[in-house]
Amino acid sequence: MNFEEKTAKKNYIYKGKILSLRKDDVTLYDGRSAVREIIEHNGGSAILCVKEGKVLLIRQFRYAYHKTVVEIPAGKLNAGEAPDIAAIRELEEEGGIKAERVKKLFEIYPSPGYTEEIVYIFLAEGLTDTATHFDDDEFITPEWKDKEEVKKMIESGEICDAKSLVALLWWINN
Amino acid sequence: MNFEEKTAKKNYIYKGKILSLRKDDVTLYDGRSAVREIIEHNGGSAILCVKEGKVLLIRQFRYAYHKTVVEIPAGKLNAGEAPDIAAIRELEEEGGIKAERVKKLFEIYPSPGYTEEIVYIFLAEGLTDTATHFDDDEFITPEWKDKEEVKKMIESGEICDAKSLVALLWWINN
Repeated sequence: MNFEEKTAKKNYIYKGKILSLRKDDVTLYDGRSAVREIIEHNGGSAILCVKEGKVLLIRQFRYAYHKTVVEIPAGKLNAGEAPDIAAIRELEEEGGIKAERVKKLFEIYPSPGYTEEIVYIFLAEGLTDTATHFDDDEFITPEWKDKEEVKKMIESGEICDAKSLVALLWWINN
Repeated sequence: MNFEEKTAKKNYIYKGKILSLRKDDVTLYDGRSAVREIIEHNGGSAILCVKEGKVLLIRQFRYAYHKTVVEIPAGKLNAGEAPDIAAIRELEEEGGIKAERVKKLFEIYPSPGYTEEIVYIFLAEGLTDTATHFDDDEFITPEWKDKEEVKKMIESGEICDAKSLVALLWWINN
């Protein structure tokens, strides 16, 4: 059965810097009408970086939750930027590590009810140390944790970020 | 080091049905100013339901991606609704199963850069079959998969939903 919802009209409420908001009129599969509130977003890349059995985690203050959140290195895609290039860039900026290449692990939908964002998760390969250089308004603390430490951080609820949980739960099993 | 960002002024751009949008003026830890685009959302609950070694998955058309997405049963919290009650409600609505109780597995932040949403993930316990009763504009197909099938669905990229990946990667390891 095909439950497709078709766009009857796209209505922009806001066009912003990191996101835009639409309130679309849609036609349901049975012909009825409905409204969908949708966030447009360029998407993001995240990168799992493992060295000598330890994974790189960063702590970053996240205004949305008014607290410091533990994550793997990640960032928004610039317009037109390839996800793998962004992942390599973020690892260098936030972790001070240059990856020769990356392997795609996941494409995730953070919250499919209202955002179009896709987050690409990569594994870093061919690592060389460089120096961190954060964005102008980004303040980040990097640290390295082994599998046992990460397991405990997940169990205790210290790691809540969705993309990081997906990457770290995958890593723990592999 | 404390990199806290303080709210200087909350500015509502849009107050909607499932989300609201603010463009806040914030003060960074070093005194500089910045702007944060933030989505307000009631949050959601998701529920991992396992019966005879198989997990309940649903397929639902998601307008944000213009395609059918595989997920565990989940839904938005009604205003003031407790996450565990919402999880039990969604399992009954979408899966036709009554859970006597639930155990909290995770609280996840879907996309901490711009949304305040929290998704609570529960494990269903004490199961009894009832009947499905979907929301008025919700069209859902339930199915049951074992661990090997779920592993393959994850590896092939068929499961992209963040909350479902977190729950299912946890289940595969436990």
